[in-house]
Parts: sequence; C-alpha cells; structure tokens
Amino acid sequence: MAEPRASQPETFPQPVEGTVMPRFADIPTFMRLPVQRDATQLDIALIGVPWDGGTTNRPGARHGPREIRNMSSMMRKIHPVSAIQPYSLARVGDHGDVPVNPADLTDTLERVERFFARVHAAGAVPLSAGGDHLVTLPIMRAIARHRPVGMVHFDAHSDTWDSYFGGFKYTHGTPFRRAIEEGLLDPKRTVQIGIRGSLYHADDMDWAYEQGIRVIGIEEYFDLGVARVIEEARRVVGDGPTYVSFDVDGLDPVYAPGTGTPEVGGFSTHEAQRMLRGLQGLDLVGGDVVEVSPPFDPSGNTALVGATMMFEILCVLADAVARRRDAGEAP
Amino acid sequence: MAEPRASQPETFPQPVEGTVMPRFADIPTFMRLPVQRDATQLDIALIGVPWDGGTTNRPGARHGPREIRNMSSMMRKIHPVSAIQPYSLARVGDHGDVPVNPADLTDTLERVERFFARVHAAGAVPLSAGGDHLVTLPIMRAIARHRPVGMVHFDAHSDTWDSYFGGFKYTHGTPFRRAIEEGLLDPKRTVQIGIRGSLYHADDMDWAYEQGIRVIGIEEYFDLGVARVIEEARRVVGDGPTYVSFDVDGLDPVYAPGTGTPEVGGFSTHEAQRMLRGLQGLDLVGGDVVEVSPPFDPSGNTALVGATMMFEILCVLADAVARRRDAGEAP
Amino acid sequence: MAEPRASQPETFPQPVEGTVMPRFADIPTFMRLPVQRDATQLDIALIGVPWDGGTTNRPGARHGPREIRNMSSMMRKIHPVSAIQPYSLARVGDHGDVPVNPADLTDTLERVERFFARVHAAGAVPLSAGGDHLVTLPIMRAIARHRPVGMVHFDAHSDTWDSYFGGFKYTHGTPFRRAIEEGLLDPKRTVQIGIRGSLYHADDMDWAYEQGIRVIGIEEYFDLGVARVIEEARRVVGDGPTYVSFDVDGLDPVYAPGTGTPEVGGFSTHEAQRMLRGLQGLDLVGGDVVEVSPPFDPSGNTALVGATMMFEILCVLADAVARRRDAGEAP
Amino acid sequence: MAEPRASQPETFPQPVEGTVMPRFADIPTFMRLPVQRDATQLDIALIGVPWDGGTTNRPGARHGPREIRNMSSMMRKIHPVSAIQPYSLARVGDHGDVPVNPADLTDTLERVERFFARVHAAGAVPLSAGGDHLVTLPIMRAIARHRPVGMVHFDAHSDTWDSYFGGFKYTHGTPFRRAIEEGLLDPKRTVQIGIRGSLYHADDMDWAYEQGIRVIGIEEYFDLGVARVIEEARRVVGDGPTYVSFDVDGLDPVYAPGTGTPEVGGFSTHEAQRMLRGLQGLDLVGGDVVEVSPPFDPSGNTALVGATMMFEILCVLADAVARRRDAGEAP
Amino acid sequence: MAEPRASQPETFPQPVEGTVMPRFADIPTFMRLPVQRDATQLDIALIGVPWDGGTTNRPGARHGPREIRNMSSMMRKIHPVSAIQPYSLARVGDHGDVPVNPADLTDTLERVERFFARVHAAGAVPLSAGGDHLVTLPIMRAIARHRPVGMVHFDAHSDTWDSYFGGFKYTHGTPFRRAIEEGLLDPKRTVQIGIRGSLYHADDMDWAYEQGIRVIGIEEYFDLGVARVIEEARRVVGDGPTYVSFDVDGLDPVYAPGTGTPEVGGFSTHEAQRMLRGLQGLDLVGGDVVEVSPPFDPSGNTALVGATMMFEILCVLADAVARRRDAGEAP
Amino acid sequence: MAEPRASQPETFPQPVEGTVMPRFADIPTFMRLPVQRDATQLDIALIGVPWDGGTTNRPGARHGPREIRNMSSMMRKIHPVSAIQPYSLARVGDHGDVPVNPADLTDTLERVERFFARVHAAGAVPLSAGGDHLVTLPIMRAIARHRPVGMVHFDAHSDTWDSYFGGFKYTHGTPFRRAIEEGLLDPKRTVQIGIRGSLYHADDMDWAYEQGIRVIGIEEYFDLGVARVIEEARRVVGDGPTYVSFDVDGLDPVYAPGTGTPEVGGFSTHEAQRMLRGLQGLDLVGGDVVEVSPPFDPSGNTALVGATMMFEILCVLADAVARRRDAGEAP
Repeated sequence: MAEPRASQPETFPQPVEGTVMPRFADIPTFMRLPVQRDATQLDIALIGVPWDGGTTNRPGARHGPREIRNMSSMMRKIHPVSAIQPYSLARVGDHGDVPVNPADLTDTLERVERFFARVHAAGAVPLSAGGDHLVTLPIMRAIARHRPVGMVHFDAHSDTWDSYFGGFKYTHGTPFRRAIEEGLLDPKRTVQIGIRGSLYHADDMDWAYEQGIRVIGIEEYFDLGVARVIEEARRVVGDGPTYVSFDVDGLDPVYAPGTGTPEVGGFSTHEAQRMLRGLQGLDLVGGDVVEVSPPFDPSGNTALVGATMMFEILCVLADAVARRRDAGEAP
Repeated sequence: MAEPRASQPETFPQPVEGTVMPRFADIPTFMRLPVQRDATQLDIALIGVPWDGGTTNRPGARHGPREIRNMSSMMRKIHPVSAIQPYSLARVGDHGDVPVNPADLTDTLERVERFFARVHAAGAVPLSAGGDHLVTLPIMRAIARHRPVGMVHFDAHSDTWDSYFGGFKYTHGTPFRRAIEEGLLDPKRTVQIGIRGSLYHADDMDWAYEQGIRVIGIEEYFDLGVARVIEEARRVVGDGPTYVSFDVDGLDPVYAPGTGTPEVGGFSTHEAQRMLRGLQGLDLVGGDVVEVSPPFDPSGNTALVGATMMFEILCVLADAVARRRDAGEAP
Repeated sequence: MAEPRASQPETFPQPVEGTVMPRFADIPTFMRLPVQRDATQLDIALIGVPWDGGTTNRPGARHGPREIRNMSSMMRKIHPVSAIQPYSLARVGDHGDVPVNPADLTDTLERVERFFARVHAAGAVPLSAGGDHLVTLPIMRAIARHRPVGMVHFDAHSDTWDSYFGGFKYTHGTPFRRAIEEGLLDPKRTVQIGIRGSLYHADDMDWAYEQGIRVIGIEEYFDLGVARVIEEARRVVGDGPTYVSFDVDGLDPVYAPGTGTPEVGGFSTHEAQRMLRGLQGLDLVGGDVVEVSPPFDPSGNTALVGATMMFEILCVLADAVARRRDAGEAP
Repeated sequence: MAEPRASQPETFPQPVEGTVMPRFADIPTFMRLPVQRDATQLDIALIGVPWDGGTTNRPGARHGPREIRNMSSMMRKIHPVSAIQPYSLARVGDHGDVPVNPADLTDTLERVERFFARVHAAGAVPLSAGGDHLVTLPIMRAIARHRPVGMVHFDAHSDTWDSYFGGFKYTHGTPFRRAIEEGLLDPKRTVQIGIRGSLYHADDMDWAYEQGIRVIGIEEYFDLGVARVIEEARRVVGDGPTYVSFDVDGLDPVYAPGTGTPEVGGFSTHEAQRMLRGLQGLDLVGGDVVEVSPPFDPSGNTALVGATMMFEILCVLADAVARRRDAGEAP
Repeated sequence: MAEPRASQPETFPQPVEGTVMPRFADIPTFMRLPVQRDATQLDIALIGVPWDGGTTNRPGARHGPREIRNMSSMMRKIHPVSAIQPYSLARVGDHGDVPVNPADLTDTLERVERFFARVHAAGAVPLSAGGDHLVTLPIMRAIARHRPVGMVHFDAHSDTWDSYFGGFKYTHGTPFRRAIEEGLLDPKRTVQIGIRGSLYHADDMDWAYEQGIRVIGIEEYFDLGVARVIEEARRVVGDGPTYVSFDVDGLDPVYAPGTGTPEVGGFSTHEAQRMLRGLQGLDLVGGDVVEVSPPFDPSGNTALVGATMMFEILCVLADAVARRRDAGEAP
Repeated sequence: MAEPRASQPETFPQPVEGTVMPRFADIPTFMRLPVQRDATQLDIALIGVPWDGGTTNRPGARHGPREIRNMSSMMRKIHPVSAIQPYSLARVGDHGDVPVNPADLTDTLERVERFFARVHAAGAVPLSAGGDHLVTLPIMRAIARHRPVGMVHFDAHSDTWDSYFGGFKYTHGTPFRRAIEEGLLDPKRTVQIGIRGSLYHADDMDWAYEQGIRVIGIEEYFDLGVARVIEEARRVVGDGPTYVSFDVDGLDPVYAPGTGTPEVGGFSTHEAQRMLRGLQGLDLVGGDVVEVSPPFDPSGNTALVGATMMFEILCVLADAVARRRDAGEAP
C-alpha cells in the first residue's frame, strides 16, 4: 500500500464511522457524509439525479440515487490500494438530489443544468449518481460551456445515436452526439471502453469514428488487457480537463443486472476498479455513475457496485482537487 | 351458474385451449387469442399501451402489457359465475401495442389518441392494458370527442389533481381533471370507488366534489358493502355510454404490490370481481386496466390480477356488445 | 381456550423446542419431530411426496416438502384455539419422502401407492405434503381400496376433468374423476369448497354434479359464510371415514402465490383455519396439503401457509386417532 | 371527511412535497421531514432503533428504520379520514437512529434507554421504528420510570414469556413480562389484540392473564369485530397515559411477510388502520412500529405498511400532543 | 469490425426495430421477428420446446421459451463483432412452440420429433429454445436419421449417463447416450466443453471416452484457453454436418442461475460468445439453447443470456445457410 | 483425472444417491449423509453453527447451515478433478447444529466451544458451516488450546480489528486478533488471501503485519495468479497442523451476494476451487465455510457456492485424515 498524501485539517467533513454507528443505521447519505446544501462549502459535491425519462428500454434509474446512498454506507474512509484518503484531501458532502420533473424531459434537462450550473459557479466539482445516461448532457452543459471536456467513458453503448422514435433527439442513447454537436465534449479527447451489443444498422458507429472518438470495443478491450487500456485512455485524454462517465452496463450484467439495457459479455468490477484507479493524476473535473436501476436488482449488488465505483472515482477526483489546490488552482 | 347467452358461430376468433397447447407454451397474446392487426375484423380490440411517462412515483407500467399477456394465458373461455362466453358473443383479438415514445409525453399522447381513433373508426370497442393512468386521457379523446362518457372508476386516487412539479398539467395524477375540462368525461355520470391515501392539501378533493363526481371513499365503501356500492355505481352512470377504468392500486397492495403508488388499506380482488360482474347490462363502451408495474411484482400476482380483471371486464363488455348488436346498434 | 384432552405418556415423540434449539437451527423435519422410518412406530406418519409430474401449468411442487419442512419449524406444540396437543394424543413422526421418479408418471403413481400401502398396513394414518394434486390418487389407492372414503376438499378447481392433451387421463386436473371411477372416493360424501376459475367448456362441471359431489363454489361460499360452510361439509361427509385434501390454490393467491394454477378471488387463511378446526370430531383417516410450489413463492409465505394448514389438519387428525383409540379401534 | 383542527403557524417543520420534489428523490427521512437532532425543538421525535439482537427467529429488523424511512416518502400531509394535519398540530422531525451495538444486547438496552431518556427529558414524545420488539422495553424504562403507562398492543404474540435458551431473560418474546415486573407497564391498563400462534406449553398465557392483561385473541377479535374491539381497548386503557405498540406480525403475513415470526391468520391493514384511528382522544404518550424485517420482504410491502401505521399513530399522537398543549400540559 | 457479407433482398423477414416500437412493447416473438407457422417460408426456424419432463432436479425449463422470447427483444440486427446480418442472409422467423404434453415423457418425445421432422422436411434448419436437454434427442431423431451429425456441446455435464431411478432410460442426463446408440450422433465428431461437477461413480465418464467423444473438462478448458479450445472443437467436428447444443449450465451459475442443475466454476458468457463466434464456417445444421429455467432466475439474466447465445448461434447458422445456398445446396 | 486412493470398506456412511432418491427429495442433511449425533462414530463431523450475533452489518448467517444443507444435495460422491472419494477415505456424517443462543454472544461462544470440544475429544475433525466469522474463535478454542494451528484464510477482510462500538472485543471483525492473543492461532503460519475493502484508518492492517501474518491482498493476488498463490500459501503454513477458513465474502459478490459485508472485486469460484484443491497434502485439522446469509441470496447461488466449497474442503480434509490414519496417527 502506497503512502497516503499529507492529510488536511480535521475540519473537513467526515463520514460517520461504522464502528461508532453501525453501517445499516441512521439516515443514508452518500458515503455517510453530512448533508451540505450550500455548494460553496464543498470541493466535491455528491449529487443524485433521480431521473429515467430518457430511458428507451427498462426504467427504474430514478431510484438509483437512493439505493446508491443506501449501499454507500459500506464504503469506509481510505482506499485500500491507492491509500487515498478523500475526506482529508477535499471537502466532500451529500448535496442532495436535483428536483427533476419525471413527466417532462425538456423541463428536466433545464432543471438539471441549472442545478449543476449553481454547483459549478460555487466552485465545487460534481460527482453524480444517476439516473439514466441522458443526465450527463445537462451536466456537461453546466460545466463545459466555456471549455469543452475530454471524457473517459465506460459503457456497453457509444450513446452517439442520432435519434429515436421518429426523429426524437434526446434519449439515453444520444447524449454524447448532442454534447459533441454543442461543443461541450471534445471527441478527439474522448475514449469509450467496453462498447458492444448488437447494432441496428451497419453504420451505427460511423459517426463516432468520424468525430475521432477512440472506441475500445469489448474485443479489443480483452485483447489489450487492462494495463494497456489504461495507458491508451490516458493518452487520449491527455492533460486537459476530463470527465469520467461510468455507465454500469459497461460491466457484464452479472455484476450489474439492475440496469436498463444490459448487454452480455462485459468487463468485471475488479477490472473497472483497476481502470478507475488508473486515472489518478489526470485533470479530472467531474464524474458520474449512471444507469443503476434498483427495481431490476433483486440482490442489491448493482447498487453496491454503483456505490463502489462512485468511491473509486471520488478518490481520484479528490486527488485531482488537492493537486489543483496545491498548484493554486480552483478545485 | 346462470344459463349462457346463445352462442355465435364458431367463426369468431377463439383462444388456444390449455388442454391442447399447455398454458405456459407458445407466443403469449392477450387471452391466447389470435393477433388481429385489422380492427375492422374485431368487435373488441385488446390493446397494450406500454407507457409510464406520466408516472410521478415508481415507474415500470410500460412492462405491464407483456406481463398481463403472459398471465392471461391462465384465463379460460367461460366465466365461472355469470356463464358469459365472451368469444361466442363478440369477435375479440389481440390488436397489439401502441408504438409509444417512452421519452416524450406529448408525442405519446398524440400517438395513443391516433391509434385508438383508428380502432374507434373501425367500429371496435377498446379494452386496454396500461401503462399508467394518464393513458386513459388520449383513449377518451379518441372515443368520447363527440359524446362524453360516464365512468366507473376503481382507484385509490381521484386522479383529478390539477398539476405537478410547478404547473405541469399531464401526469397519472391528472387525467380525469383534463378529461372533464375537455368535455370527454361527464363528471355527473362518474363514480370513483376506493379513494383513499393521504392528501397534500385540505382542499385536494374539492374540485372533484364541485364537478359532481360521486366519490366513494374507502371508509364509505366498507360501510356500504359491495352490493350497495354496485347499486350506487349503476345509479350514477345510468343508461348512458360508460367507460370502466380499473387502476390496480384501488386494490389493497397485497393483491397488487406491483404498482406505482400503492396505498395500504384497499379492497380485495374478490370484491373487485363482484363489482365488475355487477356492471353487466350497462352500456359499456370501453375499458382499461392500468398501473400494473411488473418490476415491483416479484411474485407475478399483480399481473395475474390485471389479467383476471381484464377478463372480468371483457365478459361484461362482450355482453354489452352483443346486446347492442341484438338491438341493431354498432358494437 | 378449551380444556385440552388428557395427555398421553411423555414417551410419544416430541418436537424439538424452540426455546432450547432455535427455530432456524438444525436439520429441518416436519414440525421438528424425530425422523421415524418405521411406520409401525407411528400413529400418524408425516410424509413428503416431492413430485409435480402431473402439473399442467407451472411446476415446482416437487420442492414443496422440503420448504414445508423448513417452515414447519415455526409451529409449536399446542393449538392456540382448540388446545389440542397432537403429540400427546398420537405418535407422530417425519416418515421421510416417497422416492418418486420425476421423469415417469406411471412409475411414480405405483411408487407412491406402494409407499402408502406399507404405511397403511403398518397401522399409521398418513398426512402428506405434496407434490401436485395427482398424488392424492395413489394415496387413495393405498388407503381406500377396501372402503371408499368421503372427502372434504379445499380447492379452486374440482379436479374432475376427464383428460388433457389428447386423451391423457392422469394430470393434477383429473385425480378425483379417477378416484371416483375406481371406487375409492364416494362422491356423495364429497364436498368441494372454493371452486372457481374460468371454464374450458360449459359442461366442465356437469360430471361432478352428476356424481353427486356437493360443490360449494366461491360465490356460494361467501354467501353462506364460514360457519354454515362447516355445517354443510359435516353434513355431507357424515360419520364415515373421511379424507381431507387441502390444495393451497383454494386460498386467494395473495396467501399462496407459490402454486401451479393460481386463481384470483379465493378464501383467506384465517377462514381456512376456521374450516379445518371445524372438522374436529369427524372420522378422519388421512389428509394432505398439496400444490405448494416454492420457486413461485419469493416471500416464503406459501410454504408457511402449507405448514400451518398441515398443523391444523394434524390437530384434528390426532384428535380422531385418539378418539378411535379410546373407542378401541385402530388409529 | 371531518373538519381539521385549527392549524398552527407555518413555522412548524413540514415535509417536502411530492409535487415539488418527486417522492422517490432526495435523502429519505421519516415522512420526508427535516432532520432535527435537537429534541428540544420537537414535540414528537421520530426515531429509528435499528436492532434485532433480541430476535429468536429470523433477523433483519435492524434494517427496518431505513426501509420505513424510504417508504414513508409515500405519506402525504393530511389524514384522508380523520383530516388530522399532524404537522400543523405538533413539531415533528426525524431525530435519527439510536447508535446501537449489534453484538451486545445488554449494552444496547442501555444505549436505547439513554437515548430515549434524553428525548423524554427534552420534552418530546417518541414515535419509533424498530427494530425487534425488545426495544420497547428500554423505551419504557426511559419514559415510564416515574409513572407506569397503559398500552394498546397489536401483536400475534403476547411477548410475556419468561425466558428462552436456558433462563435467558431478554428476547423479543419477553419485553412486557420485564416491563410489568419493573413497574413500567400497568397490566390492568394493557390490552393485547390479535394474539394467536401455537403454544409451547398449556400455561404459556397464564402469567399474562394473572396480571390482568386484557388479551383479545384473534378468534375473539373476529367475533367482536373492529368497532367493539376499539371500544374494549379504550375501556381498558381509560384516561391514563398510554403507549401504542404495533408489532407488524399482528397483521396477517400477507400484509407483512417481512417479519421475524410470522403467524398465519391475522388482521388486515385496513382493520389496523381503523383500530389506530379509533385511539384518537386517548392520552397517548408514545408509540412504536416494530418487527419490520426488510430482508424477508421482497415486494417492499411490509415497509410500506410499517410507514403507513407509523403515520396513523403519528396523527393520533399529534392530536394528543395538541390537546395537552391546549390544556396547558407538556406534550 | 469485419465487412459484412453481401445482403439479400429486403424481402426477407425483418425484426421490428427498437427505435420504432420500443423494445419492451408489443407481443414478444423470438428476436422480434414475424411469426411464421409455415416452415417452407423459412430457412431457419426459431422454435420453442417448452418442456421439462426429463429434469431430474429443479424444474422450470418449460417456461424457458417465453422468457427467452421476452429477453430476445434486446437483440438488434447486426452482430457487433462478426458483422453478420442474419436477417439478410436467411429467412428467419418465429415458428412457435411444440405442443408438448407436460405429463407424459414418451408422448412428448414423439410430438417433438414429429414437429421437427415437418420442419426438416420443409427445408428449414431448426434453432430451438428449450426446454431441458432431453429435447435434443427427438430433434436429432428428426434431422439426423439418415445422416449422423457431429456436435459442439457446451455443458457442465456429459449427459451420457445410462439410466436413472432404477433403469429409467430417458432423462436430461441421458440424451447423448441414446443419440449415439441410435446412430444419430457421431461420437468421434463430438466435442463436449466445460464438463465438471462431481461424479456418482468412478467410471461415470468411461462410456463417453470409449465412444471417442472429445471431452474438454473445465480444468483443461482453462488451461487451454478459448482460442485453442475453438481450434480443437473445429478439428473434432471437421467438415461434416454439425449441431450446436448449448446448455446454459456450462456457464458459471453466476451467469445462469436459472437452470436445473447448476455447477459452480464454469466459463463466462464472454468466453461462450467467443467460442460460438469461432464456429463460423462450419457446416452447421441446427442448434439449441437449453435448460433456461425462469422460476430460478430472479434477475432475468439467465433468459437474457439464453437469448444472446441464441443470437450468436443464429449468426453463424445464417452464415452457414448462406454459404450452402451460394454453393447451390439446401439450407 | 488422477487415480483415486484405495477405497475403504463399504461400511463407511454413504450419501443417498440422486439416481435413487431425487436430489430435491427427503430431509436435507449435509451432502445427503446420515445424521450421526455420536461423534465417536465419525472421522469428520459436518456441523452447523447457525449464529450471526457477531455480525456488524447485515445479519442472516444464522440461516446459513439449513440452506447449505439444502444445496449440498447437489454434491455427488467423487471429486471430478482430484478423483478423491471422501466417503471411502473417512467416516463422514451430519453431526447437527450447535444449540446457540441467538440473543447472547458470550453464552453462545461458550456453547460453541463446548460442542466442538466434545467433537474434538471424540476424535473427530470438524468441518463447519457458519454462521458469521466469529464462530471460528470458539472452534479454535476447542481444537487448538494445546497446540496452535496455522491457517489458510480466504476473505475480503483480515478480521483482525481490535474492537467495535466503543471497545467491544467480540464481533465477526475481530476473531483472529483474539485467536492470536489467546495463542490458538500461529500468525507466522497464517496466510490471508483476497483481502480488500476500504479502511477505517491508515493503520488498520498494521497489527496483522506486525504479527507476521502473510496478507495477500487482492491486487497481489491477481498479480501472482492462482498457481503462485497456492505455492505461497503452502510455504507459509508448512507441515504443521492447519485450519482452513473460507469466508464467502472473499469471493466477488456476484458469486456470493448473500453475505453480510460484501466487497466488490474479489476472486471467482473457479479460482477458489483451484486454491482449495491446492491444499491437498497439508496437515489439515479442520475447516469452515462462513458468512452465507440466505436472506440476501435471492437466487440461492451463495448457498450453492457454500456447499460446493464445503465439498472441496471435505475432499482435501478426508485425504488428510486418511494419510494420518495410514501413518498410524489420530484423524
């Protein structure tokens, strides 16, 4: 286990300890952290986006934030491999959920954007629990309007389809096409890992390739191995500001059955953990874990996986925040 | 068991028999009937509306039609109490699902309306499996534009709220307010049975009372007893054209846990069966069973209940169709 | 609570007490009784018939005996209403399962008959946990060859259909037609309670009526009320030897979702308990609880209900055994 | 619907409205109320006791408070029958969970007592979500040391056994024997409703009878009917301070499968609601809902029932608090 | 992604597109293809065999075809790795289920054989969804009477036991012993992959070895790795006509918990996908996916896996059909 | 497959064969072996310890022994890889459960110790099914008082924390700290495999390292590979008496969701099988499989895994017993 970075003052918000209050007890917040509705008091805001209105297949991701909160009680304070202590490196808190409109997609896209714009303006970096993958679009609108981001994207699907249901432009299959069209996401600094699943048409992936997205399909993923995938991902995103988007359907469905569009044959949670750890040192500016759908998750494992991946991202994000602070930059 | 009405020719579509092809076998259609995409060949069209975009709480009703089809294999051909043989009285078939847009409420309301307008124009009476309760609104737009209908409405909620989420007018909590405002539903010929559930504001129910809806709250329901509730429902709707809308959350949640907004303390399935049988002889012009949400239904009982209630409505509806035919009227 | 009958010597087999060994612990036997493979040591033999080869719809009843054993750990020693202490009145033990052949119906019918014939010859009265309802046929062949029995039969279905699948005579829908044809069951001393469920043909029930079976359909059941149903059942079976057959699908499926052919709208467990208690004093010569299918029982309640009904029957059966012994008759 | 009592100032804590923030969203607190860790700011403190160390059978009640919180999001603000508006009558808040010790019973009894003693000293009335039924003992130690309480007790079991496992005095089967021995509970002002379940020994209930507890076993319950049971309960507890303890296993297990010791044949949720409403006007000084065990509750209905019963108790408790305040007494 | 083979006319049957009719909607057929009851209109007939009468352990495979149909809605039109477009290469349709007899094994073996013989005579290649593994025997009787087939067989068990339950010859543990004895299956062109599970007797596998079957036990499988297993399988079956039989219990049970005889420690779905893709170019003449048992599959993943494996086989089978057509042979 | 060791006389207890009595039938004992309550008749005693009173997080392991018994019916007689025939090498039987006290930790520790001390004195080697991991402590007190044991320990957690909940010394997180302090476990002959999970404090693992425990964290585990992990484990424990403790949470939670403290990212069941087989030849003196919690195991796979791991340990343990007997030593 590596040496931890020097700790910050004890005044940063800390999770409730499981040896004091049992893990199954008390009101479930993300990582058992205090609720902090004022984003100016946070470096990293943990936010729920309980919405599945963009889902073309099985719904239920609206229940994701609550169950991820519930299972995140299993997370402790220190990363067992990197030794990162996120709560010593950054002020982290549960910033609550966006008050979405479950019956109106357009209204919700605006509500999510406004909510995250406020967080962004307050100087906090967002780490979100979805919700379906369309929620990443308004998040990017809030944080990448003035400077497009790169992205490390874990998923079974490219989510760059153009439209559904007769020209409809906004679903959880289209966010990154929109984000690229709107100049929020830099396709040349975007890497997609785990893509698979059968196709509607032979040219489904062509648009993504044309934009310059680096697509690591699942076959190439297995052929390269985790270490070289990490290397390639780091090469693609480089030094610029980078967003991490983790769709749990990138995992094999045995690890995450509770999701809207499961695709057999994905990567494992341990591999995902290694990849996320491999992002340490990048200029990370936000992240999300999406598509956890508790109604399809009888064992609760998908929510546990979602919470664990959120903790993994939190560690490298807190590290990035601390580096920027050490360098005199904004979080 | 009463004497059955005289049978129609054997040329009417018939369900596959369970003693020939086992009930669990073959492609599941409603009641094991043939698929019939041409509504002109039907007197009663069984239609799925797989949509939950109006749901303010737990989603999943989009999966209702498939599971109701699946469980409807348990229905046989003859009603055990009324002795009605629906497939001898009317041409009944599985007319498929409406091609909804899961990501756009407005588009879907129009699609549902168009679909049912075609069915209506073809001379078939619709019996639908939802979907959330908002789907009843476009169905009424399709069949009641020129002549408002009365309604026997089983539900835990009045569904006459005005708006949600800051003025939003269309959710599964508002269809009947809209239907009354649009002149599709005659409030004075509307009876709501089983209403309960806590309230947002003291005046939540006032609008319904003012329109003249006869609300039989659950306490009055239990005090009256089933026989007098039937009597009262028949009195309210009278001789006019009447729609039957059965929201499974009117039942106690032990009978229908798989639903979006369960409310403890409802009526039983046997009571519901008696009430639906009690509608025989009314001028029924359509019906639906809504809010079956399979992801919240681990035992599958909600879907079985949904299929059974659909069969109950089918029997009294086929009887009404046959009466009108005997009287020389359109189905 | 009534006064208990005088107890027998402490030498009768006794269940393991829950205040000594916790209920969830140790090897699960019926009612936590000792295993006794020698039927001559028993007055009442508790027997599993783990077989569902006669099931025309959903299988799984083969797993019934194990789960009923598991849940029967919740039963204690004394009936809370009748105060019957079955283990003081009779020697009761877990006699194990019949070694059925899951892939051959004919072979299994013979195996079950042989097994129960041995029990019968040993002087023990059988109380069985099914298994699908066809298992009652070979049990009757074993115990009623020389003297037809009457029957109190709880069920949603009459189980007197003639054949399935092109003339096939043996399924769980036909046992009582066969038993009457074979002279094992006296139709005039047979009462069926709870019959409902839609019909294949208008004359489905005619054969039963013609034999003189007293069918109390669910509508008549609710109209009569429990007390008068008990009275009527006692009247029908009279003083002669009587078998009790309890198909859990007689209950409403909310009480017993884990069953092969659920039919909405049945009686409740409390009503069933009252009816079974109402059989005290009859000349009971055997019983069974059938159609518990654990794979369709996510909450486990069906198995608990099965175990409870078995305990209810055990109490009145032990009482009958003790009465016969007091009268100098065989158990 | 009756006229509501005059409202209090808007300054009382209010739940988050479901038409503003969807019911499935944000951090789940009891009834969506604010968290208030300072009991002096509350008239009624909603408290979780996440502990099942006294459970002799199936565990899991430690997870009860979280799931009850989760499901309590379905409760709105106004009672649909009594029209009580609890949040206008009293200051109500989520006071968090007791920091129990899952591995030490004695330590936990002390922790629970200390926690509730602080609440009591602060002048707040406790309404708790268990936890197993043993938690009621330390609650009574905290609030009834100086003045014994009467009790309306809903349960399948009397919970007045003396000891388990070789003389062990503290389990969820013994709390009321201890409470009576310690002078906390007045047996002559105690009524137990729904008692059933088989017995270990013929004299199991004798101690309870000798103390003068009024036991309404389930048979008497059904024979009396709800209205007369309410009358009898009110007669027994009279004008004195009264505690309401609701064990969900008093309900039939179809309503509450997720519990430690289910007993077939109980009352329904609607009946329970009527009984709880029937307590309005009594001098209520606290209450609890216990034995909700989410791991045995695949449909989630038990937690929904638990939350609903908690809301029912809250309404009559808030009414009692307001009456005392109107009379110039402490809450 | 490789170049796809030249497409056939658009007149071939095509699946309903998920961007037009949502995936969860409408009547579920295999792969959302049209129902085609006339086998002469098909090159590849997708057939359900809803039967589990040969199951020696946990039943439920009779429900496999429906749930596989349901989950097959998640399959799109083009293989993401091989780029095969099966619906351009062959006429594929849902040919319905065999009308089995759930209560008679012998009768069912004959029914299945007759059904497939008709399909075979019509010139269509069968791809089936079981059902338990015994169904492969009558399928082989229908298609391999005149020319024995080789087989690539994925399974945890060799299924070459001789008999069960005292000499009983037909169960899901014996089909390939019978098929070899009857000259339908060429053991020297048979490879079994994934065999494991403890043994009854030390010589359980000897018969298989003596016939010349190439058994790749799970240890050898892991030692060889997927690429060399594919190579070896291709070597064994060579150029002759070859059947693919995929028992989902070959997979580790985490991928396929819903099966009759799970054996811990199998291969993964991704490995299975690679192996199935590795069969491209063989002279494939039929295939099946068996032992999907939905009642033991709470998350639904087993059915999804079954549908995905069926799609994988369909792709290589369509390719074989097209090659034969290109070569002027029968499909 | 290797040659089996020479068999012992047929007089050793044998499991019931699945081809005689179906696997799902009869009373479930461990491995379908006879119940043997007299330990002097056994070389290896299979024992349940149905207790979860040391669990700090999710309970339910008290139900582990029954479900492991249930699923162990799937085990046959001969190991498919090592060809070990355990029932020919040793007298093995189901020795029942320890009569624990679910409500008192101290009392239970004493009861477990007494029970195992009797087994040890009788000359039998224990192989246990837990129960939570604290049960290993009293087992070691029973068998290692006079001679400390080494241990091969599979787990996600080191279980060497000092205390919980304010100084409480006995939970399932502390057994090996206590065992080392008490001189029962030799830390220098202890290897822990699979350790991971986030930490409370940076020095959480220091005590373990200081004692000389060889900790193979999950990262080192994956880097080394199974073969070298086996080698290292054998090196650490050497020739001395060695205990095998298998906590199912060492596995990835997809293999064992039914456990108290799941940690994402563990090893697979196949890897576990290889590691356990790799222990053949060590001087094994006991073992356990712990932390199987059926209430969190909807698919039943965790119990199947538990039973399989128990069979794997049984094979190497029987081999060790036979070797010692061959060498003239006690079992």
